[in-house]
Amino acid sequence: MIKFNKVAVIGIGLIGGSIAQSLKKKNLAKKIVGISLHKSTILIAKRKRIFDECSQDLDIVKGADLVILATPVDTIIKLAPRIAALIPANCLVTDVGSTKNVIVSKLSKIFPNFIGSHPLAGSEKRGIINSDSSLFLGSLCIITPLRNTPKQSLARIIRLWRKVGTRTLILSAQEHDRILSYVSHLPHITAFALMMSIPKEYLKFSAGSLRDTTRIAASPSNIWLSIFLSNKQEVLKRIRLFSRNLDALKQAILDNNTGRIKKMLESARQKREALK
Amino acid sequence: MIKFNKVAVIGIGLIGGSIAQSLKKKNLAKKIVGISLHKSTILIAKRKRIFDECSQDLDIVKGADLVILATPVDTIIKLAPRIAALIPANCLVTDVGSTKNVIVSKLSKIFPNFIGSHPLAGSEKRGIINSDSSLFLGSLCIITPLRNTPKQSLARIIRLWRKVGTRTLILSAQEHDRILSYVSHLPHITAFALMMSIPKEYLKFSAGSLRDTTRIAASPSNIWLSIFLSNKQEVLKRIRLFSRNLDALKQAILDNNTGRIKKMLESARQKREALK
Repeated sequence: MIKFNKVAVIGIGLIGGSIAQSLKKKNLAKKIVGISLHKSTILIAKRKRIFDECSQDLDIVKGADLVILATPVDTIIKLAPRIAALIPANCLVTDVGSTKNVIVSKLSKIFPNFIGSHPLAGSEKRGIINSDSSLFLGSLCIITPLRNTPKQSLARIIRLWRKVGTRTLILSAQEHDRILSYVSHLPHITAFALMMSIPKEYLKFSAGSLRDTTRIAASPSNIWLSIFLSNKQEVLKRIRLFSRNLDALKQAILDNNTGRIKKMLESARQKREALK
Repeated sequence: MIKFNKVAVIGIGLIGGSIAQSLKKKNLAKKIVGISLHKSTILIAKRKRIFDECSQDLDIVKGADLVILATPVDTIIKLAPRIAALIPANCLVTDVGSTKNVIVSKLSKIFPNFIGSHPLAGSEKRGIINSDSSLFLGSLCIITPLRNTPKQSLARIIRLWRKVGTRTLILSAQEHDRILSYVSHLPHITAFALMMSIPKEYLKFSAGSLRDTTRIAASPSNIWLSIFLSNKQEVLKRIRLFSRNLDALKQAILDNNTGRIKKMLESARQKREALK
C-alpha cells in the first residue's frame, strides 16, 4: 500500500494540479491540500474541486506525510526551509523541478527524507486551468536519489509515479541535468531566440514550420528563467555546441559546398526519423 | 472560365500530386499529365489514378496550355529550357518553388508567359503517397509577377489558386524571399542544427519540446539544400540575426542577468502568443 494520509502540493499549476487530480482519481491519499501564492489560482482549484483544502498559507502543510513541491525551481529552493519547519522529519518530500542538481544538493540537506523527481510531461499550456489527471499517462519520470537515500522511501516514490501513470528511470541529478540540457533546455533556448528574430509584421506569413518550431516559446518565462539559471553550466555548453553546428552549416552555405550541406541535412534528417 | 485543355505537372511529389488531385476534383482541366524522373513515383501516381497520363519522358508536355513546375528549385531551373522547346509561346507556365527570386529572373527570360507562385502548404511529409486534394485549403499562395507580366495571365493564375482553395497575395520575388527567409528558411536551419546537436543515445529522453522543434528536420534534404542555396544572401543574413539573438541570451545567462533574460523570454513569449 502506498496510500498517504495527507498530501500537500505546493504550487498548483499545470503539474501540481494534475498530480493532485491523479492522486485523487487513483485514491492514493486520504486528504490532499494545495498551496498557491495566487488567490486566482486557488479560486480555479476550488471551482475544479481538485483539493480537499486550498490556501495561500503554508501552515496547511502541517501533518502531511507527503509533500510535493511543484513551483518553479527558484521558488522550490526559497520555500524549502519554511516548509521543513512545519513538517515532521519522517515526512516524505519530493519535487517536480525541471533541473535536479541544485535542488537535490540543497533540499537533501534541508529534508531528511527527500527524493527529487522530474516527470517529463507538460506543455506550453500553463496553469491549473489546464490540469488533467491523465497528463502523465505514458510519460517518463526521472527520479534522482542520492547514495544515502533510504531504500524504502525511494521504493515509495517509484510506486507513486507508476501509479500516476509514468514509467520511471533512476539517474543521478548530474546525468539528469546533462541529458535535459540537450533534449529540453536547448530546444527551448532556440525557440525563444527564433521568436526574438521574427519581425511582428511577418507573423501573418507563418506556415507550419515556424508554428511548430516556436510553440514552446509560449512557455512561462519565469519557469524557464529559473531552469536556465539553475542549470547554467550545462545550458551554456549546449548553446556553444549548437552555435558550432549552426556556424558549420552557415559556412557550408557561404561556400556553396553542396556536398557538405547535404551531408549535414541528411544526418539531421536521419536522426529525426529515428525519433518518430 | 479558367478550364484548361491540358495541364502538365512536372515533378509529382506532395505538392505536384496534390495540385493535380485538386484540379481534377474541381474539374479545372480536360486532361492532366504528370512527369517524374522516378519510375516508383509514376507507379504510385498510376495506382492513385491522379493523372490521365504519366511518364518519365518530358515529351508528354507537348500541347499543354498550362505547365506547373513542382520539382525542387534547382531542378526547375535545369528543366526550364528543355520544356520551353516543347510548348507554344502562349502556354501559361507557373511553378511552386519555395524561393522566387532566382526562378522568376531566369524563367521569365525562358518562358514568354511565366508567373511564379508559392503555395505555403506542405509539411515534412513527402511524396505523392501523401498527396491530397485538400492540402491547399485555407493556406496562402504568394504570387510573384513582374511589371511586364500580362494582366490576363496573372488573373488566370490568381483564379487558379483560389479555385484550388488558397488565399492569394501578390509580392515581388525579392519581398517573398526576404519574408520566407524569416518565417520558413530560418526555422528549418535551426531545426537541422538542433538535430545535429543531439546525441543519438539521448533521443529516447525526448519529450514534446524536442519533437515539436525538430519535426521539420525530417524534411527532404535535397529540397532544402536547393532552397538555402537559391536564397543564399537572405538566409545568411537571417542566420547572423538569429546568432546575435542567441548570443545575447547566452551572455545574459552567463551574467546571471535575470532582468535581461526575463525581458527577452517575455518578448519572445508575447510574440508567440500573437501567432496563435
